Amino acid sequence: MKFNVGVVGAGGYAGIELVRRLLGHPFFDLHLITDNEYAGQRLDAVYPSFIGKSDLVFTKRDNPEISELDLVFLAVPHTAAMSVVPDLLEAGVTVIDLSADYRLKDADVYETWYGVKHTSPSLLPKAAFGLPEITGDQLDQAAQRFAKNLPALVACAGCYPTATSLAAYPAVHAGLLDGPLFVQVISGVTGSGKKPSSRTHFCSADENVEAYGAGNHRHTPEIEQILGLPGRVVFIPHLAPLKRGLLSTVTLHLSDDAAQNFDLEKLHQSYVDFYRESPFVHVLDLGQLPRTASVCGTNNAQIGLAYDARTHTLIAVGAIDNLEKGAAGQAIQCANIVCGLSQDAGLTDVAMPV
Amino acid sequence: MKFNVGVVGAGGYAGIELVRRLLGHPFFDLHLITDNEYAGQRLDAVYPSFIGKSDLVFTKRDNPEISELDLVFLAVPHTAAMSVVPDLLEAGVTVIDLSADYRLKDADVYETWYGVKHTSPSLLPKAAFGLPEITGDQLDQAAQRFAKNLPALVACAGCYPTATSLAAYPAVHAGLLDGPLFVQVISGVTGSGKKPSSRTHFCSADENVEAYGAGNHRHTPEIEQILGLPGRVVFIPHLAPLKRGLLSTVTLHLSDDAAQNFDLEKLHQSYVDFYRESPFVHVLDLGQLPRTASVCGTNNAQIGLAYDARTHTLIAVGAIDNLEKGAAGQAIQCANIVCGLSQDAGLTDVAMPV
Amino acid sequence: MKFNVGVVGAGGYAGIELVRRLLGHPFFDLHLITDNEYAGQRLDAVYPSFIGKSDLVFTKRDNPEISELDLVFLAVPHTAAMSVVPDLLEAGVTVIDLSADYRLKDADVYETWYGVKHTSPSLLPKAAFGLPEITGDQLDQAAQRFAKNLPALVACAGCYPTATSLAAYPAVHAGLLDGPLFVQVISGVTGSGKKPSSRTHFCSADENVEAYGAGNHRHTPEIEQILGLPGRVVFIPHLAPLKRGLLSTVTLHLSDDAAQNFDLEKLHQSYVDFYRESPFVHVLDLGQLPRTASVCGTNNAQIGLAYDARTHTLIAVGAIDNLEKGAAGQAIQCANIVCGLSQDAGLTDVAMPV
Amino acid sequence: MKFNVGVVGAGGYAGIELVRRLLGHPFFDLHLITDNEYAGQRLDAVYPSFIGKSDLVFTKRDNPEISELDLVFLAVPHTAAMSVVPDLLEAGVTVIDLSADYRLKDADVYETWYGVKHTSPSLLPKAAFGLPEITGDQLDQAAQRFAKNLPALVACAGCYPTATSLAAYPAVHAGLLDGPLFVQVISGVTGSGKKPSSRTHFCSADENVEAYGAGNHRHTPEIEQILGLPGRVVFIPHLAPLKRGLLSTVTLHLSDDAAQNFDLEKLHQSYVDFYRESPFVHVLDLGQLPRTASVCGTNNAQIGLAYDARTHTLIAVGAIDNLEKGAAGQAIQCANIVCGLSQDAGLTDVAMPV
Repeated sequence: MKFNVGVVGAGGYAGIELVRRLLGHPFFDLHLITDNEYAGQRLDAVYPSFIGKSDLVFTKRDNPEISELDLVFLAVPHTAAMSVVPDLLEAGVTVIDLSADYRLKDADVYETWYGVKHTSPSLLPKAAFGLPEITGDQLDQAAQRFAKNLPALVACAGCYPTATSLAAYPAVHAGLLDGPLFVQVISGVTGSGKKPSSRTHFCSADENVEAYGAGNHRHTPEIEQILGLPGRVVFIPHLAPLKRGLLSTVTLHLSDDAAQNFDLEKLHQSYVDFYRESPFVHVLDLGQLPRTASVCGTNNAQIGLAYDARTHTLIAVGAIDNLEKGAAGQAIQCANIVCGLSQDAGLTDVAMPV
Repeated sequence: MKFNVGVVGAGGYAGIELVRRLLGHPFFDLHLITDNEYAGQRLDAVYPSFIGKSDLVFTKRDNPEISELDLVFLAVPHTAAMSVVPDLLEAGVTVIDLSADYRLKDADVYETWYGVKHTSPSLLPKAAFGLPEITGDQLDQAAQRFAKNLPALVACAGCYPTATSLAAYPAVHAGLLDGPLFVQVISGVTGSGKKPSSRTHFCSADENVEAYGAGNHRHTPEIEQILGLPGRVVFIPHLAPLKRGLLSTVTLHLSDDAAQNFDLEKLHQSYVDFYRESPFVHVLDLGQLPRTASVCGTNNAQIGLAYDARTHTLIAVGAIDNLEKGAAGQAIQCANIVCGLSQDAGLTDVAMPV
Repeated sequence: MKFNVGVVGAGGYAGIELVRRLLGHPFFDLHLITDNEYAGQRLDAVYPSFIGKSDLVFTKRDNPEISELDLVFLAVPHTAAMSVVPDLLEAGVTVIDLSADYRLKDADVYETWYGVKHTSPSLLPKAAFGLPEITGDQLDQAAQRFAKNLPALVACAGCYPTATSLAAYPAVHAGLLDGPLFVQVISGVTGSGKKPSSRTHFCSADENVEAYGAGNHRHTPEIEQILGLPGRVVFIPHLAPLKRGLLSTVTLHLSDDAAQNFDLEKLHQSYVDFYRESPFVHVLDLGQLPRTASVCGTNNAQIGLAYDARTHTLIAVGAIDNLEKGAAGQAIQCANIVCGLSQDAGLTDVAMPV
Repeated sequence: MKFNVGVVGAGGYAGIELVRRLLGHPFFDLHLITDNEYAGQRLDAVYPSFIGKSDLVFTKRDNPEISELDLVFLAVPHTAAMSVVPDLLEAGVTVIDLSADYRLKDADVYETWYGVKHTSPSLLPKAAFGLPEITGDQLDQAAQRFAKNLPALVACAGCYPTATSLAAYPAVHAGLLDGPLFVQVISGVTGSGKKPSSRTHFCSADENVEAYGAGNHRHTPEIEQILGLPGRVVFIPHLAPLKRGLLSTVTLHLSDDAAQNFDLEKLHQSYVDFYRESPFVHVLDLGQLPRTASVCGTNNAQIGLAYDARTHTLIAVGAIDNLEKGAAGQAIQCANIVCGLSQDAGLTDVAMPV
């Protein structure tokens, strides 16, 4: 059985990675790609890696054929997503949304951080949050809707929240944390998007690292929502000179109680257990910390743990590819689940070892 | 039907790329990986991108199980290959050799450029040269042997000769060239191998380009053999700060006759025709020149043509991934042909668009 | 004695490098920087490396104070330069022009390659060509004008012509060349300018090499003019993922006569002799080829030679920093000469060894 | 007046940067460079950026001429330093030590973190700690000794402690901190030293970020000593794919008291006041965070501040070049002070703006 799918906003970095993945997917037929900027151009003219591999042509976003698809991946900016999602659902199309529009369950929080009013707040409680290892139950419900031919809406987790939550969840869930959660993340430049700017110019980004958005990045409330830590996450992103890759280093200062009884090997085992069923999340042996290159180009995540006994601080590090487990890969993982497929269909590859 | 295969010398850059490819191959079962340096270590301990993906363990090169395989990929240095190939063939194992040992048909040329005596020159005429788009007939003969349960030997083309020959062959074959063929190639650092050295130290290679081996690189006679231009190739390799990717820029000064009747569109069409059956080699439209990033991580090659009418010079540019079409990918393409499979089995992927 | 100088077009990559150099120059006082885009903004707000180092503010290009300066560095695009140079000279200001507008001695050639009519062709014969090691006599004449309080005009050589001509000049001058001169050059991304574009986006340029403008780049006639080889230069630029650095690899196929008597050591010695008085151009020992990193950030050039006896081909490789010896450094070297200073005033630094 | 100086351990990355700096220094004459590995080789043969710039030759470390110098820069590994410092002081030579051997005032702490017994603990209280902006009084005392012709010993601060302490000191000193200080640092690959290894191979380091030594890096006690926070620093270094540059992101969770009265502008002003006399440390305007590229190749440091009012957390970010303010530049700054020179002699340059 095959599903007919499309990608709206296929010309951006997350969108084009979706296209790459979907062209190789065993159960999804990619029928349609839209991008308002590239409409009318061949896919392989815009992205020459597709030369000889596909004859797809970008169409406008308001392509009426979209409503005939089984499922649409939406890779447009926030606010643009909520302007099309209600109609798609209305038309019976299941939507896997990569934007931020339906991630936050509280419309007020959305408005505070995104500075715009939410135009379809009634959909927020209905959207399944797309971080399968943590919110798998929501995705299962979406799958049940889909199985009944009802349209489902999945709001895929953002790149920073994904790496951070995968690294922190089991420890936070175990109640170890005292005070704020300190999260420092390093991202590759694809995380800043396709639009050329002085910041993403090769000559600005190369041979440079910098922090940005310290304390006010929009992924903060999303992390707080996933981890159940409202008002307690200190989030500082950094930009480093690589294309893909995202490393989240989380420091959890333990409460005195937690520190007294802390056993790193036990915690490590609880992480291994927590992720045992996931084909994508791998907990490294103690003594190892993850490298982003080891997951680059794949939907995999690697997590490492260390404990600083002097300061009673747990250090959890998560590595993902921001365009994969942080965007396109995760979206397809969610779509696989919604469609009743194996969650790793089309996503089984190994990162280039070098 | 599945074939049992192994990789000898699996710990180097070409070897480990073979491992990645073979683990995802639909018809090859990777039974065995050897590497004298890593023997006894888990694959995923040496290359963490395999964590959660494989339980393979490196063994020593003299593993007796090798002789029970259907086919062995040999990714060891030159001279090391010719020390094991005769025994493997003797044992009935088909060998896909990535080294230089069986590429040159003339043992004297080998000795001149490699500085060692060839120890099994009688195998040279029997080895199929592994550059399928150009020497496909030799591979077809190897396939016939294999089909009869006879061991075959393939000597895969080197990375520089592959990109250069794919770019130059149809033009040279058309008799356009007058005088020497000037070949300048830019390679990523994986081309220099895995062994750490001051030259491959990040702080030496980063933010630097340099030429090396100008006029005396060992790939020169191989290019001359493929193109039928003995003593006429000027070959200058360069190193640039990227991991994978190889761009060969070939300049062919046309004879006066050739120039008088030259028609770029016609030549372009002859390239398109020549590569029409190849799933991997794509000739770009006139006006386009290839980018190595567009083939990175894949077995694809892209070729662009331009003509400088002022100087009667044809410029042909070929882009490959040196570890793929220049090594592991091409080896598997050859193995596919030898085993009677579709030549792109396990090699259909599209380069990451970003 | 100090000279009052300004930089027009100071916000671009060549312009800002001039600013850096001039702020540390012992005999030039930088009074004024103009940039139409950044007018009104502090230098250190646009380029934070100047924080704490300068209080300069960008002004508009039509700043009347320009005409009170002793000397102006002009770092604006071609055509923009010729729209201001006549007035500046009229006002008695010496101009060091980094654009292409006054490089080509033949206005027709300019119009052919740049597609616009030259608006002050009468200045072309008066402009000194700024490549001191080769056209030092023209600069000496400019210095004589300046010494008499007459305004001089210097048209600095372009980046590709500089590296190429330094590498090729002594050999071409010796009459060794037969047929066309094949020039393949690799440049860092600063060579593509400051304007953000999809081509200079980090995620396009990183991990990629490509050829461009093969056979039709505008620096071709400039190289032909310097080397006295009209219609004989085949010029192919490439882009590689580094910020600064330019490597020109020149192949000269020797005439039969030249080849018969060719002696590499003698030629090497003639290079050493030719550049003996230059504080910037260093000819490497035979057996060595230059690395761009060894000249990065400096006005230095390094040249290496090799000979392919099989094909009678001389290989000459030149490395420069495209923003220094290829732009700002060379402009200051020319200004030093014009002003009667030591040509290396303010330019004596050594490249960062790592 | 000129001082005769030498560099012991000149072949490593910090050592060779010292050589570059000292060759351009107005008051230091570099007489001697030692490196046991390169002894007998010319400086420019090992590091070609010195071609045409210096005729220095590396000697062995046990060169007797060392004891005739005024001042020696010691750029050898820890433990190697303490094996030569006592003799040098005995011989009357002032030592600027870049190793860790004399940084920690407590020999027991040294032994705990470095795993070796200190062989000259009596020198520890006499060594001036070399971080002029914070321990300037210790350097003034060293200057007084030097002025009396007595040898002085300076233990220069490490790269991570320098960036971290410059960013954190005024805030910590103001008593704002509650609980541990969380320090996450990103370093370029030069920080890992010159010795080739699989970790510093271009193909490992490129396109990768990773954390390492989380919670057990040897710079931890040094940061604690400078900031007066024994047992309270959580220190996590990261490696990113750039040559030079170090960014320290420090998060200080404020005590409730401190948070109640916190005023970011006031704190910012106290930073500006604290660094007002430093020619190197620049506090950015609020709203700005530093980029490492803006200080690359210079002894400058840039510091940015932000406040996360939701979590009562101050974020202080410091950027340096690890080989400059983190090593060679700081050593020369200390030497300048000790010799009674302006502290920025030979160190006034501006980072390349691009």
